[in-house]
This record gives sequence, C-alpha cells and structure tokens, in this order.
Amino acid sequence: MQIRPATDADHPAIIAIVAPTLVAGETYAIARDLDSVGVGAYWFGPTHEVFVAEEDGAILGTYYLMPNQAGGGAHVANCGYMTAPAAQGKGVARAMCEHSLIRARERGFRAMQFNHVVSTNNRAVALWQKLGFDIVGTLPLAFNHPVHGYVDSYVMFRAL
Amino acid sequence: MQIRPATDADHPAIIAIVAPTLVAGETYAIARDLDSVGVGAYWFGPTHEVFVAEEDGAILGTYYLMPNQAGGGAHVANCGYMTAPAAQGKGVARAMCEHSLIRARERGFRAMQFNHVVSTNNRAVALWQKLGFDIVGTLPLAFNHPVHGYVDSYVMFRAL
Repeated sequence: MQIRPATDADHPAIIAIVAPTLVAGETYAIARDLDSVGVGAYWFGPTHEVFVAEEDGAILGTYYLMPNQAGGGAHVANCGYMTAPAAQGKGVARAMCEHSLIRARERGFRAMQFNHVVSTNNRAVALWQKLGFDIVGTLPLAFNHPVHGYVDSYVMFRAL
Repeated sequence: MQIRPATDADHPAIIAIVAPTLVAGETYAIARDLDSVGVGAYWFGPTHEVFVAEEDGAILGTYYLMPNQAGGGAHVANCGYMTAPAAQGKGVARAMCEHSLIRARERGFRAMQFNHVVSTNNRAVALWQKLGFDIVGTLPLAFNHPVHGYVDSYVMFRAL
C-alpha cells in the first residue's frame, strides 16, 4: 500500500469513498445531502492537502490535512480520514493517520486535533488513542446519530 | 442598549470593531492580516446571522450566530462576540450573549459551543461561566498568543 498526494485522476474514486459515508451521516458532522460536486468541494476544500492510499491501482482510502484554525491556532493540524468499505480492517486508516502525523510534522505543525469524533465510532476512538491521541474534551450530546440519536462527541488531541 | 440584526449600513462600524481585534490576534484563531474585505467576509460568513448592540445610534458591539457543524452536529450553535474598546465594561458582551442564547433557542438549537476560548482571555472565560457555559475540554498550548506565547484554549459548552 502506497500513500501519495491525490491527483485529478483520483477524484472519482475519492468521491465514491467519501459520498456514501457522508450520506450515512454516522461519523462526520457534515451535511448528509451533498451532491458529488458538494462532496468534492468539501473534501478538496481550499485549505486541504489531500492524499490517497493505493494498492494495486485501487484507491483504498483518502485523507485530508489542514490547519485546524488560522492565526494563533494555525500550528495545530486537523485531518479527516475515510476508508473504502471493501478495504476495512486492513490497517488503511492506521497507515493514513501515521502518514498524516509525519506529513504534519514536516509542514511544521506542533499538534493535531480532531474536533468531533463521534463517541459511537468505537473503532476510530480506539485507533486514535493507540496512535497517541487523548480525549481532551467531551461534547455532551453534540452529535445526532441517525441510529442512536443524540450521542456525545470527543475532542481528541496529540502533540507532534 | 438595543440588540438587533445588522444591516448593510452597519458594516463600517462592525469592521471598525472586528478588524483591530483580529489584528491584535489575542482572542480569535483567525488570520491576523485580513484586509477589511476579508474581515467582512469572515464576520458575515454565509452561515452567520449577525447582530449589533446599539446605544444612542452608536454600535457598541457585534456578534454572529451560526451552526457549529452541519449534518449530525447542526443542532449545536456557535457564536463570536466583539465589543468596541470604548464600550468595554458596560455589560455589552453579557447582553449580546444573553441575546444569542434566546435567539439560538428560537432557531431550534439545543446547545451552544465555543470552540477556542483562549485561556488568557480571563474576562471572557469568567463571563461565559457565569452565563452557564462549562469548560468541557482543554486544548493544550493550542493558541500562539502574541504576548504570552503558546497557551491553552478551552472548549466551552452549554445546553439550551
């Protein structure tokens, strides 16, 4: 598996991964009714550096890296990661997160923050903890989950 | 003092309040080098509902109200408040926050979250606590303060 910057040619494969996750609406606090143009505008937002995880020519996952804030907060990075359903359980998310930590350090970021990790997303919470992130805040009932209703979200943070 | 929706005629007075605060860069994690067009684009962002506090025809302060996230996070509001330097200590921020809590409830929000309250901004932290907000998270050294260097920021939250 290789992780590399996304190219224009990757767009359809990226949209095919990101769109269903946003429609499902269980993990990202992003509009659930975006069309493919809206999905692309979100994932390739102006401050986003986008990468893909590729194996044998297939895109298994994608992530973006961005400054979480500007001004006095610009030294803290933020990322979003998504893995293709068919590639779950193969360590794609872990590999992308490890890659993003290295890339964020390269770019001079001093920390990484996830603003809204839905508490029911157990696999993600556990993985980020294994990769050095702490839960530094709990947002009470801040996510309206399509199955579980209002659930907590976590703010997760690690120094770089 | 009256708090009312901002009109086009209020723009210059609002920019005159917001711009110096962003340039000073001590309280908002926003770029410090925005020109007046950039300041206006930020304060009047597409999801922002903007209000002003007015007394005897003078604009004493301004705030915006917006959804903090979209999708499953769209029931949590976010606000930014700024008071004109000459009007500090007159309860303008308190009045604007109280107004925003009422307005947020009217709009159906179930909670309000401040994502990045700089820990050295003691007056703001104390005021938000008096108005029912809890510190639900501490972001370690997440703000690079122009005077104090890297300091913590708080995530503050209250139900509505």
